[in-house]
Amino acid sequence: MKRSEVRSDIAWAGPAKIVIHGLDLCEEIVGHMDFGQMAFLQIFARRPKDDAELRMFNAVMVILVEHGITPSSLATRFTYCGAPEAVQAAVAAGLLGLGSVFVGSLDNAARMLQAAIVDPSQPVDTAAVAQQIVGEYRARKQIIPGIGHPFHKPIDPRTPALFGVARETGYYGPYAQLMTAIGAEAQRQTGRALPVNVTGAMAAVASQMGLPWQICRGLAVAARAVGLVGHIIEEMRAPMAEELYLRIEHEASAHLAPAQ
Amino acid sequence: MKRSEVRSDIAWAGPAKIVIHGLDLCEEIVGHMDFGQMAFLQIFARRPKDDAELRMFNAVMVILVEHGITPSSLATRFTYCGAPEAVQAAVAAGLLGLGSVFVGSLDNAARMLQAAIVDPSQPVDTAAVAQQIVGEYRARKQIIPGIGHPFHKPIDPRTPALFGVARETGYYGPYAQLMTAIGAEAQRQTGRALPVNVTGAMAAVASQMGLPWQICRGLAVAARAVGLVGHIIEEMRAPMAEELYLRIEHEASAHLAPAQ
Amino acid sequence: MKRSEVRSDIAWAGPAKIVIHGLDLCEEIVGHMDFGQMAFLQIFARRPKDDAELRMFNAVMVILVEHGITPSSLATRFTYCGAPEAVQAAVAAGLLGLGSVFVGSLDNAARMLQAAIVDPSQPVDTAAVAQQIVGEYRARKQIIPGIGHPFHKPIDPRTPALFGVARETGYYGPYAQLMTAIGAEAQRQTGRALPVNVTGAMAAVASQMGLPWQICRGLAVAARAVGLVGHIIEEMRAPMAEELYLRIEHEASAHLAPAQ
Amino acid sequence: MKRSEVRSDIAWAGPAKIVIHGLDLCEEIVGHMDFGQMAFLQIFARRPKDDAELRMFNAVMVILVEHGITPSSLATRFTYCGAPEAVQAAVAAGLLGLGSVFVGSLDNAARMLQAAIVDPSQPVDTAAVAQQIVGEYRARKQIIPGIGHPFHKPIDPRTPALFGVARETGYYGPYAQLMTAIGAEAQRQTGRALPVNVTGAMAAVASQMGLPWQICRGLAVAARAVGLVGHIIEEMRAPMAEELYLRIEHEASAHLAPAQ
Repeated sequence: MKRSEVRSDIAWAGPAKIVIHGLDLCEEIVGHMDFGQMAFLQIFARRPKDDAELRMFNAVMVILVEHGITPSSLATRFTYCGAPEAVQAAVAAGLLGLGSVFVGSLDNAARMLQAAIVDPSQPVDTAAVAQQIVGEYRARKQIIPGIGHPFHKPIDPRTPALFGVARETGYYGPYAQLMTAIGAEAQRQTGRALPVNVTGAMAAVASQMGLPWQICRGLAVAARAVGLVGHIIEEMRAPMAEELYLRIEHEASAHLAPAQ
Repeated sequence: MKRSEVRSDIAWAGPAKIVIHGLDLCEEIVGHMDFGQMAFLQIFARRPKDDAELRMFNAVMVILVEHGITPSSLATRFTYCGAPEAVQAAVAAGLLGLGSVFVGSLDNAARMLQAAIVDPSQPVDTAAVAQQIVGEYRARKQIIPGIGHPFHKPIDPRTPALFGVARETGYYGPYAQLMTAIGAEAQRQTGRALPVNVTGAMAAVASQMGLPWQICRGLAVAARAVGLVGHIIEEMRAPMAEELYLRIEHEASAHLAPAQ
Repeated sequence: MKRSEVRSDIAWAGPAKIVIHGLDLCEEIVGHMDFGQMAFLQIFARRPKDDAELRMFNAVMVILVEHGITPSSLATRFTYCGAPEAVQAAVAAGLLGLGSVFVGSLDNAARMLQAAIVDPSQPVDTAAVAQQIVGEYRARKQIIPGIGHPFHKPIDPRTPALFGVARETGYYGPYAQLMTAIGAEAQRQTGRALPVNVTGAMAAVASQMGLPWQICRGLAVAARAVGLVGHIIEEMRAPMAEELYLRIEHEASAHLAPAQ
Repeated sequence: MKRSEVRSDIAWAGPAKIVIHGLDLCEEIVGHMDFGQMAFLQIFARRPKDDAELRMFNAVMVILVEHGITPSSLATRFTYCGAPEAVQAAVAAGLLGLGSVFVGSLDNAARMLQAAIVDPSQPVDTAAVAQQIVGEYRARKQIIPGIGHPFHKPIDPRTPALFGVARETGYYGPYAQLMTAIGAEAQRQTGRALPVNVTGAMAAVASQMGLPWQICRGLAVAARAVGLVGHIIEEMRAPMAEELYLRIEHEASAHLAPAQ
């Protein structure tokens, strides 16, 4: 049987030394790098090149940590209620719902932007590209990712917050301009206000940072794992899962119960 | 049916404003807090009280992110190989193995320390307590968590790194002293070198930070989620899962194949 | 590096033939065995020795498939709501809550029975053993697994159903007698009615079938996977997850919303 | 806040009675139905209409249980190795890889067939429809699901086995004819042998049984859960995960280790 190479460049450990992405864990990481720098190192396989890059990365990560009571945090709480000894399983259950409905638009927006602008160092006519993209999506009757929000209206307040950091750090570039132009063009063609939402803003910034669209969801998953631990801590202290399950069970099956 | 209260204090969102643990996401978090500060906020439900507390927290988190090729990162890679469209599932699969064998000793060490020192502000005779604990574990033929390491010998290099930060930040307190005393006492009673390992060091520091033992595993799970995203990124670029699975399938079932 | 053997006896596949536990998939399984027989084959690594054994196994499996709206089926529904493209993840999320609270008592009851009766072919004084077990659990202030039920009172109707099949098939043996004696003895010592519940009945039957206690939870997990697919099918047709999440989010965070 | 109905028709439980899909669990299911009948009930929300329908369903289920050493069963084994106390998590981890690569083609084939034949009681010109479908897929440079196999050559032996049962039970109908015609047409257009594989055969049969394409993956997930329990049982008795992980870790990081 032919064998191919099996190789990982991430880490190496000897009895007295651990090296991660080329840095000595005990000498260069612990006590020297914070969690944001470490997350950057793990995802980009290098240190941030300057404070601006790290600040932009941190702004994306912090926005993804906590989204309140969601299907995802409820799945975590219901799982914890049945398996409190397996905190890892409760976090995992909450992550599993981060699919096409809630974070898929992040991948989709980044994919759309990265397909349109292959090399962001080259000049691009964002208005023309936006017009073409909006036309194509509408022709395919497909939802344009990254614009509009059913609840955060008229604008998603996280977009100016994130784009504000992007402007200060130099990451408000062609991708953010294109995303903004797509929102404006969609409004022009449909007559409805469709400003860039947090997903579109994150996709633009992540694209400008050089992250392939396929891995954008990974950032959301990593950050949300932190958030879900917070929900478990609250569920430990002030549980809601058992009360909810009893209520729902009662309501959902009431029509099947025999008449008294 | 009697109804109890269903209540979460973590977050609230209005169309134009999102509040997390009392802080305005767009005004006080994005661009103002880094990922480590946000993780601290989510886990402690408050900001760090000073730079020392944040630095100690960051040191614990960074040490947990990446442990190389492990059963956990392999589960992530094998899952990604079958479901590359569901990055959340690949991360979740890797988290699921963070159970009794690999991170359970963290909970166990923290539980042991927190049971022994209920109020760390009171004086404690660590040598006497250590002698009692080691005696009890040995009488029950139970492994003492947090000491010794099969690979990192004679000492786990992460322990002095983490305890170094703890000394600088004021978190080398009664729990760390007790953990160290337990290692020394175990060596005295068994004649084998059993210094504090990274798990024992983290348990001591987390206990000194006031984290209940039940949630220590949560820190490991959150940090490892970041690490597993790094493994997915590498698996995207330089896959090993398919090669490995074919090799293993071949080797494992060779004895069942009909003779040629 | 020293290498140990890597070997699996479960299956082997050639281009034109697949063999599972010694049976030819295409010649001896498909069209010849039903799902219950196949599950038996996979779990016991052999065919059932007679119809009675298969009937007993089927009775255990069918009782485990569906438990209505539970924290587990809710975790599945909430996950499906966010990731409808990943049905496997929704099933997995529901399985993750099958831990110490809901199915742990099955393992615990089987473990208790198997520790008490190592060789069921030898005579055993069930009343004496039951007295000792109940005394030990009460001395340790530990809950005795497999007896009593908060909802199915005065008796769990599944116990006579399952023990009825056990009597007909020859699997009502020493383990079932001991389990029943434990319930009677607990009632004697506490004055409360504590009849054998479904968990105790399944543990007794599984022990009589020769299943190690560590794998009893596996039967529950496998059967419930089937049940959770049913919940996904209903959630596709008549969704409840989104309505529930919106209600819960509203109720849980109402106290944080600014006064109007 | 407006409230919609929350309702489940699957099950209802009173203290002395449990009803599942209209059947009394203790009177009509336990001891009366086998695991295949119960799985049918849970998935179709009715009993099989005759033995032929049940036999066809069983044939689909048994074929999905066990696929040997796969990325999925390896994820289960690696997870078990880290969390042997959480069998549910090990099964869940294995299920998570049942995504687009391994079972996605089942959904895709069923979707393709169900889009082409909306009403299987109406006559259909399968050759003409097959020609159109193959042409469209080739024009889009998309892989046609359900035909060809990289390992099971020249034919997938499971296809004649499953179609044999379908012929005997009356489920070899328009969908199976179309699937077969698609394989033949693809061979005509490409010159390569592309017979119907097991996935295509299952998709045809499931479509003929009236299962919506979206839930076909659910059958695979439910059946595989049974299979993965078998892998855990073997891993308990004859573990391979630790040996594998040590080997892989060694090989993958060897190039990072300092030269001796």
